[in-house]
Amino acid sequence: MKIKGRNAVREALVSNATFDKILASQSARDRVFQEIIDLAKSKGVKIQFVDAKVLDRECDGHQGIVAYTSDYKYCTVDDILANKKGKNHFILILDGIEDPHNFGSIIRVAECMGVDGIIMSKNRACQVTDTVAKVSAGAIEHMRIARVTNINTEIERLKKENIWVYACELGGENLDTASLDGDIAIVMGSEGKGVSSLTRKICDGVVTMQMYGKVNSLNVSVATGIVLYEVVRKRKN
Amino acid sequence: MKIKGRNAVREALVSNATFDKILASQSARDRVFQEIIDLAKSKGVKIQFVDAKVLDRECDGHQGIVAYTSDYKYCTVDDILANKKGKNHFILILDGIEDPHNFGSIIRVAECMGVDGIIMSKNRACQVTDTVAKVSAGAIEHMRIARVTNINTEIERLKKENIWVYACELGGENLDTASLDGDIAIVMGSEGKGVSSLTRKICDGVVTMQMYGKVNSLNVSVATGIVLYEVVRKRKN
Repeated sequence: MKIKGRNAVREALVSNATFDKILASQSARDRVFQEIIDLAKSKGVKIQFVDAKVLDRECDGHQGIVAYTSDYKYCTVDDILANKKGKNHFILILDGIEDPHNFGSIIRVAECMGVDGIIMSKNRACQVTDTVAKVSAGAIEHMRIARVTNINTEIERLKKENIWVYACELGGENLDTASLDGDIAIVMGSEGKGVSSLTRKICDGVVTMQMYGKVNSLNVSVATGIVLYEVVRKRKN
Repeated sequence: MKIKGRNAVREALVSNATFDKILASQSARDRVFQEIIDLAKSKGVKIQFVDAKVLDRECDGHQGIVAYTSDYKYCTVDDILANKKGKNHFILILDGIEDPHNFGSIIRVAECMGVDGIIMSKNRACQVTDTVAKVSAGAIEHMRIARVTNINTEIERLKKENIWVYACELGGENLDTASLDGDIAIVMGSEGKGVSSLTRKICDGVVTMQMYGKVNSLNVSVATGIVLYEVVRKRKN
């Protein structure tokens, strides 16, 4: 949903709506404007400062600020931990997926593979937008998604709950032979950069799928599908 | 590449360029125009008859006809059969993939999984376009793709060559336990309709991946990735 104008954006912030982002004029400087920006920052909302012309293209009467909110209700990591779908925890962690088609497609395959929930970053990552919901083909309605400020903090927490956390990246243990039983979480990295090095370091292990071509890099939603399918297949055996 | 005007389109047809499609004015009726259309039909090129205004939007000086050609060099099914990458034939058959992002992503995962080549339909399917090449992330350069008029005819031919052809669809044998050794081809269906019923009927078997969610339908590129990965994993064991 697009919210325009200072009072409307402030109201949405106060009511704790789920924000995708705020576009704010880079030339606005007055006190009321700054108060709203400070409020948005305190809530962790992503703010982009843009030329006023960009706002003019978005809508009339924007008063220097336009917000985009989502109707999607994110959950908490506690909700995910409290709602196992199978015998064991099975969690997917996304380290900065940027493309809405990839994100939607990942939600779809995660739902099909019985994942309990998805943990994703609030920053530098595609949020649940209309496009994401559409690409998920309805799966978004059945998938818990928690947005967190720092995924590394959450990984440390999962480890304390005795959940084994594996990054899917090059240079790790062969996915075919890796033991992925019990309570686990799988970390998938972003399209361009993969799993960040710090995140990789704090994971319990790294798993790698074997490839046989000359290109040997996969679309992240395809890679996620293969890894999740393998986890489920191994669990059944 | 966009080719406009009657002589240019005729030349491209005579030189056997690879056509994506031809847009032709639905109001043109003269003899020269009809000759070009007949020539295009004889070459199996897809022709869309559109309002002249659509052509005006595409370019100036179109003379009622605009063609879109591809620089990509398709191969023949013989080329694919003659160039096994592994010990056994491993062929992917696409039954009418429509979305260029899906097609590109499928080419990418097929290359990574060591598929010998892809057989696809000339009609009612996305062809190799610039978008497809881009989404394939370079894999297009290493993948043989044969365009055929009728994939059922080609399936019958593969069967005569002792290649086992499996459709990936609901209601078949469990992918996890299916034997997929030896020379095989996998048929993936279109986004909306899956594998067509006649194609399914002539295949040697149907394999189905198990799913555990409420939605239980996957993006076709994700599904292709999972099936190809499983085939390779089984072959190694």
